[in-house]
Amino acid sequence: MNSSPPPAQSFRAIDLIRRKRDAAELTRDEISFFVNAYTRGEIPDYQVSAWLMAVVLRGMTRAETAALTDAMLRSGEVLDLSGMPAKKVDKHSTGGVGDKTSLVLAPLAAAAGVIVPMISGRGLGHTGGTLDKLEAIPGFNVNLSVDEFRRVLEGCGCAMIGQTAEIAPADRKLYALRDVTGTVESPYLICASIMSKKLAEGIDALVLDVKTGSGAFMKSETEAVFLAELMAETGERMGKDVVALITDMDQPLGFMIGNALEVVEVVEVLRGKGPEDLRQLCLELGAWMLHLGGVAATLAEGKTQSEDLITSGRALEKFRQMVELQGGDLRAIDDTNRLPQSRHTSVICSARDGYLNSLQCEKIGTACVVLGGGRERKEDSVDPAVGIVLQKQVGDAVAKDEPIATIHYNSETRAAQARQLLEESWKIADVPRSNKRPLIHQVIRTHSIAKHGEKN
Amino acid sequence: MNSSPPPAQSFRAIDLIRRKRDAAELTRDEISFFVNAYTRGEIPDYQVSAWLMAVVLRGMTRAETAALTDAMLRSGEVLDLSGMPAKKVDKHSTGGVGDKTSLVLAPLAAAAGVIVPMISGRGLGHTGGTLDKLEAIPGFNVNLSVDEFRRVLEGCGCAMIGQTAEIAPADRKLYALRDVTGTVESPYLICASIMSKKLAEGIDALVLDVKTGSGAFMKSETEAVFLAELMAETGERMGKDVVALITDMDQPLGFMIGNALEVVEVVEVLRGKGPEDLRQLCLELGAWMLHLGGVAATLAEGKTQSEDLITSGRALEKFRQMVELQGGDLRAIDDTNRLPQSRHTSVICSARDGYLNSLQCEKIGTACVVLGGGRERKEDSVDPAVGIVLQKQVGDAVAKDEPIATIHYNSETRAAQARQLLEESWKIADVPRSNKRPLIHQVIRTHSIAKHGEKN
Repeated sequence: MNSSPPPAQSFRAIDLIRRKRDAAELTRDEISFFVNAYTRGEIPDYQVSAWLMAVVLRGMTRAETAALTDAMLRSGEVLDLSGMPAKKVDKHSTGGVGDKTSLVLAPLAAAAGVIVPMISGRGLGHTGGTLDKLEAIPGFNVNLSVDEFRRVLEGCGCAMIGQTAEIAPADRKLYALRDVTGTVESPYLICASIMSKKLAEGIDALVLDVKTGSGAFMKSETEAVFLAELMAETGERMGKDVVALITDMDQPLGFMIGNALEVVEVVEVLRGKGPEDLRQLCLELGAWMLHLGGVAATLAEGKTQSEDLITSGRALEKFRQMVELQGGDLRAIDDTNRLPQSRHTSVICSARDGYLNSLQCEKIGTACVVLGGGRERKEDSVDPAVGIVLQKQVGDAVAKDEPIATIHYNSETRAAQARQLLEESWKIADVPRSNKRPLIHQVIRTHSIAKHGEKN
Repeated sequence: MNSSPPPAQSFRAIDLIRRKRDAAELTRDEISFFVNAYTRGEIPDYQVSAWLMAVVLRGMTRAETAALTDAMLRSGEVLDLSGMPAKKVDKHSTGGVGDKTSLVLAPLAAAAGVIVPMISGRGLGHTGGTLDKLEAIPGFNVNLSVDEFRRVLEGCGCAMIGQTAEIAPADRKLYALRDVTGTVESPYLICASIMSKKLAEGIDALVLDVKTGSGAFMKSETEAVFLAELMAETGERMGKDVVALITDMDQPLGFMIGNALEVVEVVEVLRGKGPEDLRQLCLELGAWMLHLGGVAATLAEGKTQSEDLITSGRALEKFRQMVELQGGDLRAIDDTNRLPQSRHTSVICSARDGYLNSLQCEKIGTACVVLGGGRERKEDSVDPAVGIVLQKQVGDAVAKDEPIATIHYNSETRAAQARQLLEESWKIADVPRSNKRPLIHQVIRTHSIAKHGEKN
């Protein structure tokens, strides 16, 4: 699929705004005109922001969402990886706290023979970003050109970079406008933004990890399922094999939050250790990547293969190859004590005996941002060394004065703020909570559309 | 009431956009901040247009509408006419075809001793504009400064001008943005736009003529009543005495449409003649102006006085005074043949015997625009001479080959287009229509709020 010229047909922006305001369904040509003309600077911001607000409040049909995704995708370069014989599969997470699965999964799937051309983002709000984590590895370069990206892929089967100027420029321009006009929060616009970038990677299949819970953007399961179905259907309309897993983000994933700290935990998992929740989620998502990538006939086989790739050290070896090809210092992988370290640590202990019954996940993510591990404003730089290590997870018993979390910090003021947020984030009760949220809530696949030939 | 400084409190535009998007009620301070900061150029167009679209789709409470009106009003100069002892009353029409009542009513009410400081607009879409009609009188100057406006008012008790740079600058800026972002069509924004300009005139009372029917912006009675109630309540919240009449605009008012032609009909009414519908509406609206202006104890008395002012020639004499003070050529009033005349006329006759059962009023207004009597684009100039004279009104019997309308034109091409629109505009049936739409559908006053001390 390559960029096509803009449609010959021309429309008036004002008419498209009015029609969306009045809840009409826009045609593929109308949406394509609007996106292309905006990207070329022919429609002013003030008309596009009015249209975006109308989309937020009126919604879009599935056909409109697919048309918007397609127009944004075609606004830039679409990678052609057809020269590589294996299937290309990517994984995308809607963002959470302590979610470092991408760093495990890209090399794991590549070790199985799947090509993983992963274009990721930076930390957003209280959630961490894959690029920030990778950059905690000294020397690791996420700013590759499309040609360099391709060379790394050819070299080791996986590559992890940031959005380039060539990929979906319409999304960059639209996202910047959405960010300042209160039009970020729309599943249709979120779907088009994510899917346009992912489909520009030239992939055959996509595994979506849609987070739900106190640390996710979609707090409720209903919202998460709605977005997951929208993205799965949009992908299938465009001829891609897509699965969406609704997974739990009511507490951080694993024990470590913070860029270098998360790389430590990634290496632990790749060494066959690490926290059970993180390991299990990696195996489940890995199983889907291997299955959709055509190297595992069944999901169960995909899971067994994923376990073997970790046990055998092949996934770790692939990770080392990628780090090396992208300029990273391998010594920091082989000895994670060589990753950036904070100057100070401070332990927070329980005020009482009891059971850890909840962790306000967004507050923990915000505590990491406050420490300098994320950005309060876009232009902020990130401190790779700081973060939080939890000693407990939801359900665990805690004794009075037993450590619950350790703060890794470089500034006393910031540490004090983070400490307060952390202390507010947990609830300790006399009795253990009766219900435990499962790690994987639902699996969503939408087959019908692609099968009935309605794909675009 | 004078301009007050902007509130000390400051807000973030993005938060106000998000809150309106989520259907929250904004406070008076928030709205005041938003309007003032936009007028000063501190909030960019793209944020305001997103907010405007959220207002269109989420609506506003009555308190928000009043706060918006107040902020727009205070964005510029508010006339202080307290030096003139009589009450100041204005009339505003939401726009129609052939609606020339303002030219009759301003001098009529002034002749009764009411002060009428009328700031009007130009033709908009298919509807005519008071300023364009006044400018058909050779020499008539509608572009007076606030000081000149005041001198005319002191000289004859009424004055009719266009919006000045000093009055409600926020409305001018917001209206220009609404015009290009599909955010014109909101009763809340229409109300704030109209009322902010009218209340800046320093009036005590306002008579609103809200048109409904095929020639009005509010096609349905429900829409018209909603807007009328909104404007009446907004006026009363701001301490003004307001009445809104819902009046018929399912056929043109009077027989003449076009700028100079409408001045002819105005002079006819002021001479005690003219079409009955136009004359009756002037008497009804005049009665309200005199009643609210404190010179008629009852509405019935107001109507009798209005009739007397016409019969005695005092209303016409007041009109002549105003024309003279605003630089107009009195000879064109005393002999309306001296008003601009088109070079050609063309009569359209009925194709059959029957009854004129409907007149698609918007088409007739558009026919006048096509002839050059209105603007297709803002920058177009207007031809004062062209227009349409109807020979029939709805309900009249027509014989085959009997004239229905005469086109006054200066361009054959334009005349042909207008002719087609006119022929499409009427329906001739075998039997007369059974129901006749009344001239005045409803009268709306909202007393409760002002009485209960909730006014601002």
